[in-house]
Order: sequence, then structure tokens, then C-alpha cells
Amino acid sequence: MASINKNYQKLGGIYLFSEIAKRTKVFLEKNPGIEIMKLGIGNTTEALVPAVVIGLMEGVKKLSDVKTYTGYGDEQGNLNLRQTLSDWYKKREVSLLPEEIFISDGAKSDAANISSIFEDGSVVAVTDPVYPVYLDANIIAGKKIVFLGANEKNNFVPEIPKVKVDLIFICSPNNPTGAVFSKNQLKGFVDYALKNKSVIIFDAAYSEYISNQDLPRSIYEVEGATKCAIEIQSFSKSAGFTGVRLGWTIVPKDLGLFNGIWNRRQTTMFNGASNIAQEGGLAVLSKEGQKQTKDQISYYMENARSIKKTMENLGLKTFGGENAPYIWVKCPNGLSSWDFFDKLLKDCHVVSTPGSGFGKMGEGYIRLSAFGHRENVNKAVESISRNLKL
Amino acid sequence: MASINKNYQKLGGIYLFSEIAKRTKVFLEKNPGIEIMKLGIGNTTEALVPAVVIGLMEGVKKLSDVKTYTGYGDEQGNLNLRQTLSDWYKKREVSLLPEEIFISDGAKSDAANISSIFEDGSVVAVTDPVYPVYLDANIIAGKKIVFLGANEKNNFVPEIPKVKVDLIFICSPNNPTGAVFSKNQLKGFVDYALKNKSVIIFDAAYSEYISNQDLPRSIYEVEGATKCAIEIQSFSKSAGFTGVRLGWTIVPKDLGLFNGIWNRRQTTMFNGASNIAQEGGLAVLSKEGQKQTKDQISYYMENARSIKKTMENLGLKTFGGENAPYIWVKCPNGLSSWDFFDKLLKDCHVVSTPGSGFGKMGEGYIRLSAFGHRENVNKAVESISRNLKL
Repeated sequence: MASINKNYQKLGGIYLFSEIAKRTKVFLEKNPGIEIMKLGIGNTTEALVPAVVIGLMEGVKKLSDVKTYTGYGDEQGNLNLRQTLSDWYKKREVSLLPEEIFISDGAKSDAANISSIFEDGSVVAVTDPVYPVYLDANIIAGKKIVFLGANEKNNFVPEIPKVKVDLIFICSPNNPTGAVFSKNQLKGFVDYALKNKSVIIFDAAYSEYISNQDLPRSIYEVEGATKCAIEIQSFSKSAGFTGVRLGWTIVPKDLGLFNGIWNRRQTTMFNGASNIAQEGGLAVLSKEGQKQTKDQISYYMENARSIKKTMENLGLKTFGGENAPYIWVKCPNGLSSWDFFDKLLKDCHVVSTPGSGFGKMGEGYIRLSAFGHRENVNKAVESISRNLKL
Repeated sequence: MASINKNYQKLGGIYLFSEIAKRTKVFLEKNPGIEIMKLGIGNTTEALVPAVVIGLMEGVKKLSDVKTYTGYGDEQGNLNLRQTLSDWYKKREVSLLPEEIFISDGAKSDAANISSIFEDGSVVAVTDPVYPVYLDANIIAGKKIVFLGANEKNNFVPEIPKVKVDLIFICSPNNPTGAVFSKNQLKGFVDYALKNKSVIIFDAAYSEYISNQDLPRSIYEVEGATKCAIEIQSFSKSAGFTGVRLGWTIVPKDLGLFNGIWNRRQTTMFNGASNIAQEGGLAVLSKEGQKQTKDQISYYMENARSIKKTMENLGLKTFGGENAPYIWVKCPNGLSSWDFFDKLLKDCHVVSTPGSGFGKMGEGYIRLSAFGHRENVNKAVESISRNLKL
């Protein structure tokens, strides 16, 4: 008799975004005709840049001609793209072989699937607050969870594990808090991992939002990291590929067996990322693509500055939003996350994301997102400035 | 200390295609300048049809304009595509709700990932010979394996399990044997599954190669199947999407908990198929797309007929190749799969796929593939006709 994987029963509900939608709907039913402004969504909103559009079109065109048509590619990705990424890292003084770079259909799949190459029952450290995928995927995979608290005291950079753990999931720049590890803070984790033979899973999907050149954009900028860290990356937030789907994961050969095991996992259970998307990825990494996507990131970061300034002008305490597209705001007057969510909705008609949806330590905060059209963000911050009654 | 998932050590090597490449290379080194003809590869070779190219181009164009740009879509897929697939099944008198259809990045991922929603230690039946993904993914997932033999006696349609099993992986039309289940044979499996509360994972990726209208193209053509079967499908072989990456999996609500658990798996561990590929999928399902892709399938099936006829004219026994793009050929004179592979390579300069690479029961057979340009296939069969010394 077929039975379900019982680990699914240990998962909490995915109620955050559905609860947001429900409360917004109820508000709109009571107040018909009101325009709602969204600062809650971690999804890109601007069109793909011209260089990338050309790359994707070329990708489609190749498939339309029998002379340039390609079917299955390597499961690990187009070698040209892997080589180009290797060169891209070289400019950051990070040395990686193409065989250490595995192209994927995005960071979420890899962040979720990576656990499967490690032993059942491994002890996994995740931060609190946390991007839910790390937590849920590890519960499904039968791992034991340890939480690393991130709070105002440590500026939302999580503490180093106090107990022995096998795996550590960290994300910098962080979703949801917008916190970014300094090189020294990251070194603390690398030292811990080397000492305890742990593996760090480092999610760098928001690396391109870092403008402060002192902050590491790859964990491999820290010495020794190739011996203890896997890095997950994505074109989603750096080039608007949230819908196109393309990312990559680095499993260094220095990590020993894991490079070969991840290769076996991907060749067995994945059939490569879309060849059209991979052509788009190459266009992102071209000179013109890098310039244009950098400008798009500046556009979003201008939104971030405007949101952060607005909240601070009202006397609210904020975190992040400087090298990350998320602004983490402390709820005023001891309000809970949901209370402040309701208040922003009622007073200002602005939708936010309650921090408590990301874990216990997120209670008392909300996340505001810089992803949005400028005019909508402007409307939202003006409404907050004018209407928020503290 | 981080340790690997020990199940990986239980896997056999993936030596089939690398061994084929190695032997071909050695032959070419000894015989420089000789032209090798390939009948070994299960990969599409013809350009995408015009209607689909237009659909994909439109998909890219939408992303180039802020008014039509979309980022993350539903993890389960574009609702319009799910509805269109539901309508497509309706024409085959199969009734499925859009909520029962989950769009994916292709059949291989889903065939590999589906095991994770079932209990560890589940007993899984796979056929022998077998498409390696079913076997390997279940070993990695810690399942117990039972083999269902497929041989000349049962015309390569596998036997019904003799013991109690929880899951059954079947594929029709079959890769590698080209065998296709009759409705009655499929009913035997459905009856077994209903009686034993097993779940059948039915891979129908080659369904569009069935021209005999009496043969089922979906397991749901068999009464009761929605209560015991998951169907995995793909645009790869029906529309040349092997590189574009798009498929779908049906988990009927009649299956109970599994629909919700697969939904949870996909929303947690997957971020949707590429929105460009999904526009392409809609184009495949359009009237013009259906007509053009059907013509492309006829092209490949003309190759199949030519290969099958050539082998039979030489007195060889063949299976499949009538409603499937694979021709399964019995090796002459008691030769092993690899011996016959070597003979075809040396006598005729043709590369085939040794059946023994798909399991013990595949020993003594080779697989020939109908995927190829007509002129190359013609050259290959002419060389076989002229040069094969039996």
C-alpha cells in the first residue's frame, strides 16, 4: 500500500502569502474602490534589458533552424556558460573551474534539492528569521533542525552555531532581513565549518545588490571556503529571470566527494536548464548585459532608499535596504507583525509582509520590498508619509 | 560532520553512454576519416515547428515590455496552460481538472522527484529493461526495488507484480523497447493497483507516437486509473522540447492525499517552469501547433519504418518501432549486446545502444532510435543493408 512521506506532516502550513491575500481581500470588500499599493512582494517587475532580450531571441532562433537546433544539452549546463561564469568569478578574484559550476533552473530548486545528497538525520542549522525553503526542504528530507537566531543585537547577522551541526544554510544579502555578512563575519562561519567538518550552503542570489565593495559577494572570497562551502546563485534577481528560470550552484572539488555526488544527482534527476534561458544567461554576462542589468539593479535600489528614508523619517527603526532590496522595519509601539501589517493596510492602503511569517524572531518586524515600478513605490511611500498614524 | 547520503553508493555506474563514446572513439582512432552514423541517441534532431517558434518569440517579447512582463508564476504552472491541457485530454475522453495538472521542467525531473512524496522503504516495482531514471532515483530515495521482467514471451510488456508492491513505474510507449501496452494489459495493472492500494507512475512521454487508435495514450483511458495512477508527460518528444524543457504531471484528486502532497512538494521545492517555455507549450497545443508537430512525428516515424524494415529484411527479429520511435532488435547468432554493437560499428560504421545497458533482460538486444535527419538515417540503413555480415 502506497503511503506518504510522513515528514510532510511535520511541515507548518504555508499560510503567510495566502493570509496576506485574504486580509487584503477582506479590506477591499469593506472599502470598495480603494487602490492598494504593494510593498510586499519579492518578485521583479521591470522588463528584461535589451541585451538579454536579444540573447533570448537568438536562443529561440537557433531552435528554429535545423542547422543550429539543439536538443538535450549537458545536465550540468552549457559548457560555454559554465566557462563564462568561471571567468566572471575570476574578475572577483574567485577561482572556480567550470566543472565546479552546475547550471540549474533557479536557486529555489537547488536550495531545496541540495539536502538530498547529505545523510538522513544530518543536523541542519537554519537562521531565524528564515527563507522558508531551507527549513521546509530539510524537514521533508528528514533532517534535524537547529535555529540560529538573528536579531537587533547582532544586526540580523545570525550567530555561529553553539552546538555541532552538519549543514548550515545562510543567505547574504538576506531575505527577509536585508542583512549582509561582512567578510569577517563570514570568516567566523567558515572557521566553524572547517573545524567541525560541516558544509555551509551559502545562498548568494542577491549578491548583485551589494554596492559596498568591502562586503563579500561570494563566500569564496573568504579563504578556506572552497573546502567547506557550496554556493547557490541565480539570474532571477540580478537580471529579472524570476520567470525565465536560471541559476547555478557551485560545489568545489575541494569539498571532496560532494562534487561527484551532486554531479550524479543532477545527471540522474535533472535534465538541464532550458537552452533558451541559457542563451539569455550568456547575454546577462556579456559586457552590455552587465551594464544594463546593473542599471536595473540601481533602479530597484533607488526604490529601496526611498522606502527606507520614508520609514526613518517617521521615526521607525529599519535594517537592510542598503546592499539588499529588502527593508526590515521594526514595528512601532510594540505592535506585532500582523498588527502593523493591518495598520499599514488600513491607514495607508499599503501591503507589507509580516516578519513573523519567516520565524519566531521575525515577530515585531515587517519586510518591505524594493521590487516595484517607481510610480507605485512613490505612491506607497507618499501614502505612508501622509497617513501612517503612530 | 557532513556525510553523504549513503544510498548514492548503492547506485551502479552510469557507464552506458560513456562506454559507447569510448568504443566509438577507439574505432575512429584506428580508422581515421571514416564517417560514423548514429542510430543510438534518444534526442530530437529537427527544428522546432513554425507555430511553436512564434509562440516562444512571443513569450520573449512579453518579457521585453514592462506592460506584459511577468516574473514568478504559479509553481504549478500557468493556469491557462493547465486549462488548455485539461481541454486537450477532454478530446481524448479523459476528464481532468486543471488543479490535477502540474506543469514541470520536463518528465525526467518529475519521474525522479515523485518518489520523495512516498514513504522511505516503500517497495517499488520497475521493469527490466528499464529507463535508468526510475531505478536510480528510487535507489537514491531509499526505496526497495522489485523488477518486472519484460521479454519476448510477453512482447516486452512487463508482467504484473507477483508480490505486493507500493509503487509501480511503467512507461508506454516504452523506452528502450518500443513496446506499447494495450488497454487490456494496462487494465491488468490498474486492477492490481486498486486491489493492493498501490500507485502506478505512468510515463507517457512518447504517447504522441501512437498511431494505432486502439492503444491507450493516457492511463486514464482505463476506468479506475484516476484512483491509482499518476501520469508523467512531456513536450520533449512530441514537440522537440528536449532542450526547451517543459512537461507536466497529473496527480488526480481521486488519489487522496497525494494531490495535496505533490502540490506542497512543488510549491516548496520548485519555482515553476520557464514562462517562455510555457508560451511555447501553449503554441504546441494550438490548432496549427498540433498539426505541425504531428507532421514532425510522422517524419521520425518514417525513419522508424525504414530502420525496422531494413533489420527485418536481413532476417533480424525486431520489436517496437510501430507506435514508438525506438526499434528493439534481437542480436543475431546469440551475440551479446556489446558484441553486436561492435559488429555494427565495425561492419557498418553505425552506432547503436546496447540493450544490456538498460538491465539484465536487455542483454542480447540493441536499441535503434528513429531520431535523426532523414539523410543520415538513410545512409545508416543503406550501410547496414550492404555491409552487415551475419
